[in-house]
Amino acid sequence: MDKGKASKALRALLESYASLNHPPTYIEYLDDPPTPLEFHQIVSRNRPVIIRNAMNDWPAYTTNKWTPGYLSSKMGEMEVMVAETPKGNADSIVLHEGTKYFVQPHTASHPFSTFLTTLKSSTSNPSPSTVLYAQSQDSNLTSEYLPLSEDIPETIPWASISFSQPFPDATNIWIGNHHSVSSLHKDPYQNLYGVILGTKVFYLVSPLGVVGVKERKVRSATYVKTGEGFDIVPDPVSSSSINKEGEGEEGEEGMITWPSISLDEYFSLPESERSIPVEDVPDTDPWKWTKLSTPIKVEVKAGEMLYLPALWYHQVAQTVDEVEEVCVAVNYWYDMDFSGPFVSMVNYVRDMTELTMSS
Amino acid sequence: MDKGKASKALRALLESYASLNHPPTYIEYLDDPPTPLEFHQIVSRNRPVIIRNAMNDWPAYTTNKWTPGYLSSKMGEMEVMVAETPKGNADSIVLHEGTKYFVQPHTASHPFSTFLTTLKSSTSNPSPSTVLYAQSQDSNLTSEYLPLSEDIPETIPWASISFSQPFPDATNIWIGNHHSVSSLHKDPYQNLYGVILGTKVFYLVSPLGVVGVKERKVRSATYVKTGEGFDIVPDPVSSSSINKEGEGEEGEEGMITWPSISLDEYFSLPESERSIPVEDVPDTDPWKWTKLSTPIKVEVKAGEMLYLPALWYHQVAQTVDEVEEVCVAVNYWYDMDFSGPFVSMVNYVRDMTELTMSS
Ligand SMILES: O=C(O)CCC(=O)C(=O)O
Ligand SMILES: O=C(O)CCC(=O)C(=O)O
Repeated sequence: MDKGKASKALRALLESYASLNHPPTYIEYLDDPPTPLEFHQIVSRNRPVIIRNAMNDWPAYTTNKWTPGYLSSKMGEMEVMVAETPKGNADSIVLHEGTKYFVQPHTASHPFSTFLTTLKSSTSNPSPSTVLYAQSQDSNLTSEYLPLSEDIPETIPWASISFSQPFPDATNIWIGNHHSVSSLHKDPYQNLYGVILGTKVFYLVSPLGVVGVKERKVRSATYVKTGEGFDIVPDPVSSSSINKEGEGEEGEEGMITWPSISLDEYFSLPESERSIPVEDVPDTDPWKWTKLSTPIKVEVKAGEMLYLPALWYHQVAQTVDEVEEVCVAVNYWYDMDFSGPFVSMVNYVRDMTELTMSS
Repeated sequence: MDKGKASKALRALLESYASLNHPPTYIEYLDDPPTPLEFHQIVSRNRPVIIRNAMNDWPAYTTNKWTPGYLSSKMGEMEVMVAETPKGNADSIVLHEGTKYFVQPHTASHPFSTFLTTLKSSTSNPSPSTVLYAQSQDSNLTSEYLPLSEDIPETIPWASISFSQPFPDATNIWIGNHHSVSSLHKDPYQNLYGVILGTKVFYLVSPLGVVGVKERKVRSATYVKTGEGFDIVPDPVSSSSINKEGEGEEGEEGMITWPSISLDEYFSLPESERSIPVEDVPDTDPWKWTKLSTPIKVEVKAGEMLYLPALWYHQVAQTVDEVEEVCVAVNYWYDMDFSGPFVSMVNYVRDMTELTMSS
């Protein structure tokens, strides 16, 4: 097969998607929560949307507002798992002694109030030696953080009805500051992500843009705390537990396929460079395929909820609430529907992207 | 690019689709009309479904039941356009003097009651010299057949709400007998197809199965009635009107891309041949790609309504009502949603299928 033609077809796919979802970097805002049918219409389009006034009846956001003081009073000395990294880079690709690794964070259990005090005090520190992020994505709100779960609804009614799922698969709390970034990845879940304190910055790429995120197969490793700081220790090759369900893809033992680009870097390009229409992106542009994948950058402010469709790539940064010095968010993962043509087609685009781009 | 690998990826796409929509040749029946949300859940899965009791309040189906006698009493001598062909093969590929043509029917205007009398009398004729089919798909129920439109609703409420479209784009009546078959094709519409008299037999292939329907680019032509019967006259090359909106695809003037297989032939294969699981279909099987595309055959009986998702290939045969000797159906075409990833991905699968299968 002619590789030039395959490459043209891939480009045509991205140009077509951009023209049928115009402008492709646009994100819709809803002023009120949708009805279940309205939400289903959004879901079936697999497009992100920001929903306002969706948390007006959450004690977490209104009555008991989740300030650090309130959180500490509820959680006290209860132990929570915290990700610890040198630069706030949990689950990301790191160059170490000439080799690229996918590095998972060091994790340690801390009494909640100790964690929160340390986190807050690191907010004003320009380069803390350890960056803390409470991000144990195992439905922590129904386990570690159980005392807080009474402040948020068990499910989001319009989402439950729309998905025909009485309850989400997981509900997570995320507590961190601007030092932490979640690297670009995707999840096989429908995600409703509500911000309580501070702002989350989501960088997004649609599932069709797999070519733009430049997935690479790398060795997996874990940060280990040493006396001086952090060391990177490759995972033993027999381990196969590094692959969180559906995230990344393991070809061989101890290897993981993960996006290699940083969208933060992409969005540092001048606006004039990024706003070029897809059909005018030159073949010689080093960011060509990323531009054709039309990444979206969107701020989700306190009180707003992002609907992040299943399989969308997302990289997430955060800024703290100015008074409270932390960023707090809650998200609901609902199972995605694997039936229909979507999942098979996404995998096909991924397979063909790999064949088309491999030299 | 390695063609073997591209072919494997295409096969993996079809195997994945079959396994995620299991069994892939299954069609769901609803005993009652869905709610708008339930219907949207079906639509977003892009899977066909048969709905019972959806026409219980249609005068066409109940009170005034559309018998030929009733239809003639309402329409009288009003002129209607009728497709005339030698073998009931409107819009199909025909081998003529060593060349394959896409042949459109001869069309002629007839007084309705004359047409219906001739049609009925041809039902018991094993090989009529001319096969008649009233199938002028131009929203004929709101034009030619206006007197009949009061017997059916202007729109299907749960579909209108679900699609956010107050009215369909077109409403058509189809009147024929077992001599007519609509050849395999696809439409860029959401289709709700209700049978009033007789039975329609739908042969279906999902949009991913483009490889299985073996599209070929052929010259377009039209049947012309002569003293002895029919002649096939190639369309003048300057004509570009042969391409009904969205049906087929015109590369060059006077050429059209159209499925070349007959699913009637496919379904004459023994059941044991067809029910082989996709993963066991041998590469040497001449029907390999069609089998991997898992065609569905379903009878839609009087009183039943088929939801035929946009872009599904369909070939349609019919059998008459035993007493009334005709087959009568009504369908609603609603605009499909071109936003989201689906249309771009279907076109990509089509492009890559062409590159993969071309020698
Ligand atoms: O908030 C974050 O840091 C990451 C969120 C995320 O990846 C998710 O909700 O799936
Ligand atoms: O009933 C038929 O003969 C064909 C129906 C059809 O092609 C359609 O409804 O799109």
